[in-house]
Amino acid sequence: MKLIVTTLMVIFIGLNAPISAQNNENVINSLFLNSLNDTTTYHQLRYLTKTIGGRLTGSPQAMAAVEYFYEQLKQMGFDTVYLQETKVPHWVRGEKETARIVSTKYGREDVNVCALGTSIGTGNNGIVANVVEVHSMEELAKLGIKNIKGKLVFFNHPADPNTYATFSSYGSSVWQRSNGAAEAAKFGAIGVIVRSATLAHDYFPHTGVMRYQEGIEKIPAVAISTNDADLLSSRLKAEPQLNFFFKTTCEQFADVKSYNVIAEIKGSKSPNEVFVVGGHLDSWDTGEGANDDGIGVAQSIEVLRLFMALNLKPAHTIRAILYMDEEVGQSGGSTYAELAKTSGEKNLFALESDRGAGLPLGFSFEAPDELIKKVQSWQDFFLRWGLYSFTKGGSGVDVEPLKELGVPLAGLVTNSQEYFDYHHSPNDVFEHVNYRELQLGGASMAALLYLLDLNWVE
Amino acid sequence: MKLIVTTLMVIFIGLNAPISAQNNENVINSLFLNSLNDTTTYHQLRYLTKTIGGRLTGSPQAMAAVEYFYEQLKQMGFDTVYLQETKVPHWVRGEKETARIVSTKYGREDVNVCALGTSIGTGNNGIVANVVEVHSMEELAKLGIKNIKGKLVFFNHPADPNTYATFSSYGSSVWQRSNGAAEAAKFGAIGVIVRSATLAHDYFPHTGVMRYQEGIEKIPAVAISTNDADLLSSRLKAEPQLNFFFKTTCEQFADVKSYNVIAEIKGSKSPNEVFVVGGHLDSWDTGEGANDDGIGVAQSIEVLRLFMALNLKPAHTIRAILYMDEEVGQSGGSTYAELAKTSGEKNLFALESDRGAGLPLGFSFEAPDELIKKVQSWQDFFLRWGLYSFTKGGSGVDVEPLKELGVPLAGLVTNSQEYFDYHHSPNDVFEHVNYRELQLGGASMAALLYLLDLNWVE
Repeated sequence: MKLIVTTLMVIFIGLNAPISAQNNENVINSLFLNSLNDTTTYHQLRYLTKTIGGRLTGSPQAMAAVEYFYEQLKQMGFDTVYLQETKVPHWVRGEKETARIVSTKYGREDVNVCALGTSIGTGNNGIVANVVEVHSMEELAKLGIKNIKGKLVFFNHPADPNTYATFSSYGSSVWQRSNGAAEAAKFGAIGVIVRSATLAHDYFPHTGVMRYQEGIEKIPAVAISTNDADLLSSRLKAEPQLNFFFKTTCEQFADVKSYNVIAEIKGSKSPNEVFVVGGHLDSWDTGEGANDDGIGVAQSIEVLRLFMALNLKPAHTIRAILYMDEEVGQSGGSTYAELAKTSGEKNLFALESDRGAGLPLGFSFEAPDELIKKVQSWQDFFLRWGLYSFTKGGSGVDVEPLKELGVPLAGLVTNSQEYFDYHHSPNDVFEHVNYRELQLGGASMAALLYLLDLNWVE
Repeated sequence: MKLIVTTLMVIFIGLNAPISAQNNENVINSLFLNSLNDTTTYHQLRYLTKTIGGRLTGSPQAMAAVEYFYEQLKQMGFDTVYLQETKVPHWVRGEKETARIVSTKYGREDVNVCALGTSIGTGNNGIVANVVEVHSMEELAKLGIKNIKGKLVFFNHPADPNTYATFSSYGSSVWQRSNGAAEAAKFGAIGVIVRSATLAHDYFPHTGVMRYQEGIEKIPAVAISTNDADLLSSRLKAEPQLNFFFKTTCEQFADVKSYNVIAEIKGSKSPNEVFVVGGHLDSWDTGEGANDDGIGVAQSIEVLRLFMALNLKPAHTIRAILYMDEEVGQSGGSTYAELAKTSGEKNLFALESDRGAGLPLGFSFEAPDELIKKVQSWQDFFLRWGLYSFTKGGSGVDVEPLKELGVPLAGLVTNSQEYFDYHHSPNDVFEHVNYRELQLGGASMAALLYLLDLNWVE
């Protein structure tokens, strides 16, 4: 599938000459063209998603992903490849969850749920109780103990569709997943059912991490698919006293050892000054972790592959980090930042890809205005490859701990209209990654790092 | 699925006041927000693709689509809904095509082909012959009669991946589909096998129209999937004398009557001055015609729906045209333009959506610079909804005949990285249309027409 065409070879031959600022445009174009003709990391992504599959932090699959990429990166011939130990949570989902509406009017209706990450299980008998539907924490508090005690709380606040920014839509509904169980337990609830944090209308439950609070009873929590949430809500309107049953057998175990997988191309001038590019190796277990975040792994490796393929010799070290445990404890990102404090190195800049492999549209920065302006001054290089947006905004969960060290951060911004249709669900599969969009994203990151490395001034 | 939320209602209430230039921003935002909360045309698209299915020009399905939308548009309550008669080609694919490589080394290997549109069939016995692989018309001519006579010509020029612009990639390979049979017949070929015009590597053959030349013998033509093209090419390298068999039973019949389906909102000031918005009703028959071009149909109707929902009263008539026969004879577009010459109306501007329901990114114009500059001056309205590109470029096949009348034209530009993966193939199905991207596209078109209508100066 490697199609090397004549025009491309002409450009490559040109690149054997030393790189000067004048031929930046050629280099940027060559990064994209090389990427659109190479399937190395696309096939690695296929293996990660189709052969290894979902790889929950602490699971055998997560360790298989570590081992696979450690070997792959060594074979690719980068200057350094190593593992960085980190302690990660170990939560196990157990058997496939079951749930049903038990109504005198409508009979028993099976619905699609999944346990939320770090939730306790119900035990083998499951739990069954009346349901109280709420849409906000205020509504929950207003109902109080007398209406909630001994019941299941059904958080049914839909993600807000009234924005272009689907990450805001997600943010508008994810609070019930994160904190619903702890808040409901304060009023004596025995479990929570949470509407999936997605704009999609379908039958996939979307998992994700939740947090208990110290001193508050732990109660089981499940996500319910949006279509089933709508069904449950309509059934409750017709029959407020209906029962809901669910059974989950998830369990929390002691933390285990795991690893960030790291590869780098050493800086020719300042090897101790580092540009970080990363994504996360772990994923949720109900899907294949393709868009979240197999693609970030593939694109981070693609950055290094491109520098090597084009024989670019960065002045500073370019380091790809395949982070462990973004989804549950964020331990990989914390460990890297912790070790960075005493490593004797300086992290100059860190870039993450963790928004799915939609069409790349630009970068968002947690960085000083001058840096953003500098990137904006390069917009002509980027615009022909579809990147037009270079603004302040979030970076990525894994690189975020570096902020404390004063490291400027950025995230690859992609078309996210579909992202939350897949996110944390059984529908996050390899088939929803488009080869060209994946490659354009990796090349975009390489282009940004190439230009930053070349123009970096302290 | 209609989610009417409080913030949205506030905006709508504001819109009952007459529209002034000052509240353009509110109107534009309301168009997008209304569209992101309404599923009318999304469900129409579902019916068109899932219930009616592929609807080849001249077929019963194409007529069912005419009837369905004629009724739907009347029910939606637009000012005028009517049919415009046009004569269309009537080609029938016949039974599912079969094809195989017949090799002494590898045995018989079935491959995926489909007849190209308007091709003659092979007859019930099929044809079998040696294969000559070529990659250009020059190569074909060089081989000449002595190497080609009595054989099958295999056009295997891949679409060029070395560009961001996938329409250019398509253009780089579609010539062999359009003209391969006629050119090969000049050298005595008895049939052609054409690599599918797509960047995807898969097993879907991509059909599309081809043209015979007067006075040149008509020979059967099929498209072969890209993976099977690669297989055939590798088998030919190992065994140049292998045979290839294919059987197609397609037939061309006499032209039949069909219709453009038209609906409009009459202009309050200049009802005889018309803004056209359109897509095409017909599609290829091997898939469901979802991205090509069910989405253009849905979005064109959405434009009218939005004007009505927001109680916008355009000064000029806004006319949605669901064109018939874009794929084979382009008769619907020609008929409309022909009738426009003597209608006593003036077509001010025509906008088409026929590039798939990817994320909308802007518009491309076949229009005077002043018009493009005017649109660019509105970029702040568009940018928050992801539209950033307003440049010269193609419009659409259906509106193109209006150019002769001096009508400025435009096309909705969408993310087309995936489009040719589906285009003209069995994989062009409803599932590959994202609801939000579809809606954003319809709202984008409504926003452009709203601003042009309000600011139109002759």
